[in-house]
Amino acid sequence: MNDRQRQRERWERRTETPLAVASLAYLAGYAVRVLARDLPPGWRDVCLAVVLAAWALFAVDYAVRLRLSGLGPLRFLRGHVLDTVVLVLPLLRPLRMVSVYDKVQRRRDRARLTLYARVMAYAGLTVALLGFAGALTVYHVEYGAPGATIRTFGDSVWWTCATLATVGYGDVTPVTPVGRVTAVGLMACGLALLGAVTGSFSSWLIQVFTREDEKRPPGNPPGAS
Amino acid sequence: MNDRQRQRERWERRTETPLAVASLAYLAGYAVRVLARDLPPGWRDVCLAVVLAAWALFAVDYAVRLRLSGLGPLRFLRGHVLDTVVLVLPLLRPLRMVSVYDKVQRRRDRARLTLYARVMAYAGLTVALLGFAGALTVYHVEYGAPGATIRTFGDSVWWTCATLATVGYGDVTPVTPVGRVTAVGLMACGLALLGAVTGSFSSWLIQVFTREDEKRPPGNPPGAS
Amino acid sequence: MNDRQRQRERWERRTETPLAVASLAYLAGYAVRVLARDLPPGWRDVCLAVVLAAWALFAVDYAVRLRLSGLGPLRFLRGHVLDTVVLVLPLLRPLRMVSVYDKVQRRRDRARLTLYARVMAYAGLTVALLGFAGALTVYHVEYGAPGATIRTFGDSVWWTCATLATVGYGDVTPVTPVGRVTAVGLMACGLALLGAVTGSFSSWLIQVFTREDEKRPPGNPPGAS
Amino acid sequence: MNDRQRQRERWERRTETPLAVASLAYLAGYAVRVLARDLPPGWRDVCLAVVLAAWALFAVDYAVRLRLSGLGPLRFLRGHVLDTVVLVLPLLRPLRMVSVYDKVQRRRDRARLTLYARVMAYAGLTVALLGFAGALTVYHVEYGAPGATIRTFGDSVWWTCATLATVGYGDVTPVTPVGRVTAVGLMACGLALLGAVTGSFSSWLIQVFTREDEKRPPGNPPGAS
Repeated sequence: MNDRQRQRERWERRTETPLAVASLAYLAGYAVRVLARDLPPGWRDVCLAVVLAAWALFAVDYAVRLRLSGLGPLRFLRGHVLDTVVLVLPLLRPLRMVSVYDKVQRRRDRARLTLYARVMAYAGLTVALLGFAGALTVYHVEYGAPGATIRTFGDSVWWTCATLATVGYGDVTPVTPVGRVTAVGLMACGLALLGAVTGSFSSWLIQVFTREDEKRPPGNPPGAS
Repeated sequence: MNDRQRQRERWERRTETPLAVASLAYLAGYAVRVLARDLPPGWRDVCLAVVLAAWALFAVDYAVRLRLSGLGPLRFLRGHVLDTVVLVLPLLRPLRMVSVYDKVQRRRDRARLTLYARVMAYAGLTVALLGFAGALTVYHVEYGAPGATIRTFGDSVWWTCATLATVGYGDVTPVTPVGRVTAVGLMACGLALLGAVTGSFSSWLIQVFTREDEKRPPGNPPGAS
Repeated sequence: MNDRQRQRERWERRTETPLAVASLAYLAGYAVRVLARDLPPGWRDVCLAVVLAAWALFAVDYAVRLRLSGLGPLRFLRGHVLDTVVLVLPLLRPLRMVSVYDKVQRRRDRARLTLYARVMAYAGLTVALLGFAGALTVYHVEYGAPGATIRTFGDSVWWTCATLATVGYGDVTPVTPVGRVTAVGLMACGLALLGAVTGSFSSWLIQVFTREDEKRPPGNPPGAS
Repeated sequence: MNDRQRQRERWERRTETPLAVASLAYLAGYAVRVLARDLPPGWRDVCLAVVLAAWALFAVDYAVRLRLSGLGPLRFLRGHVLDTVVLVLPLLRPLRMVSVYDKVQRRRDRARLTLYARVMAYAGLTVALLGFAGALTVYHVEYGAPGATIRTFGDSVWWTCATLATVGYGDVTPVTPVGRVTAVGLMACGLALLGAVTGSFSSWLIQVFTREDEKRPPGNPPGAS
């Protein structure tokens, strides 16, 4: 068992960077296909190939990890729900980004970022990538729909920002079922991840003010908020 | 008194599963009646019978518990406001789900779920069931109203999600008094229960990052956030 | 000084109930004048008299407290900003309700309500009263305005609920300057007071789940969240 | 190094007040140029001169601090991202206000404000100034745009309030790209800073109620929430 765990850790350490690169390649390929609609067909096929190759890589990684876990497929699936969701919908990959981000941070060995700053950076980055993927998808399914109000990618980004911030003007809204399901997913992310960002910001601000209080009587370590 | 309490606990233990089943039957019967409008009348009557039978069960349970409490009706009512509301409006039953959920969890004896995960699971599940009941009710009272913008069940679900997330696009909104009262109830649930979900998610995220900090100097138990 | 403080406390203790009654009378008189527009003029004058009498009472109370404080008007004003605002705009009186509410609670000597329940009850009650006053004011200034979408008191209440929950559909919105200023005030209250309600609810829910954890190993006092 | 730090601190202490005055002058000049469109050209030029002079002052301050830090431009920039952003977009200056505010507070030597009150005051003031700057900018770029719904400064302020509170009615919304980018910035500020305000308010309210609990058994210092 211990041996298996070591194997698994080695696999995860080695595949981390390639998988992160593949995720970005997937997102980039998808973005180019959606946005550059008047690209020559040759380039569009290249994008499709990149997207499919990245997806194949994700599937291989999933299969290897399933094998290394020594569990049956169903039990593995139950313990790795997020991994499975992310395999089926690779646009949600940013959700698994925490380990990559943390590793980059650690390699530079800069412990300057405090706990709250790290939560904010991770949640903010994740929400930005998910928001970009969501804006792409909504634009893709909406721009040609009858009665659509989201007609340009700019509209889609504007709508995404208003949704993630839970402002929701309603001047542009998705009208297709796929667009609306994507929207509900974005709302959930906006609520959860941006809630974490604002909560951490608030805690950090209180910490800053607490520390200022303690500057005058010197020697005390800055306490928790 | 102690004897009475034991009796009450036995009653609650025995009725838990039947009541949970009755709640689901009530919701299912109501959903079929509202959604499948072109069902043959025979089936519609079956649904109505299921709904009424479930309601009768709730009333019997309430009466037995009132009797077992040994209190007058008014004093019992004052101490069981939520139970009384839930008796009158059985669609709000999910609010009482916490005990059932907890019991299922305990029976499987899996303590894997942490505190925050449990709060998120309970509040998320409750909000999903209440949202479904709310979407049904709003669709039921709105789809035929003059000037209504909520015309299909899909619209109603879309509106429910936008309301619970406090996004509120306003592209579709209820126009009837009953629909608006339901909407206000949904807003209150959305604020309170989804606030609990996002708050717990935020705390859990901070906990994860704190634990990662502590991995390097080994031996310390992971501290609270 | 000590003598003065005792005098002040006696004054506050004695005027608490009359002032609370006067606040309700003020709100009721204002509500009747706004809502019952086809009341015979005699009754409308009675309402106006009640409103003015309540206002006079507030002014007398303010003057006596200014006198008892032994401070100049300006220094008193600086230390009692909320009292002064509430004197000028008696519809904001619910903001000062905390002491009355607490006293009623204490007189019944029921310590059953926990800390979070008390915060929720106070903030919820305040927000309900302020919301009612806001809905009245907005209805009063909007229903006759050109291009208004808020035409009935029902619309106004619906708009108030959507605003306080920060949902903001935008199907009905104020168009007059006074209505919009009232709306901004309501948003601020909604954010702050309902934020306190949901925050307390969330903390209470986590406490409930924590306590359940601790039920099995008996004897421990329920810990903080 | 220690000598350099002392020099830097002296510089910061001396420039604090001039820079705060310059920030207000910048905001005032910008506001007059945007709002008083029918001012005689002479006065408009005066406003422009004030704005440019303030900007020059900010640049000089930045250059001196870069020199005093003894770092290369790139490394200085990396450690002072907020300062650099604020140099390029002086309308965001309120974000750096915390030190000025704190100093004013300290000079009066009134420690009456508690931690939460100070966080609320700082975040509230910052959000008010940023909101004013945002309303000016949006009004400036929108009022002449084709299809614009924000046509007066009043509309712009109303829209700003609804956006900061995340209510987002959508009755008036920006339609130009610059207006929408400003809007996204305002949403971020609204989420983060007003989240800090409401979080602090909530904590303060719980503290008040906790303290009331402890009044009866005298002698205990009021505990944390």
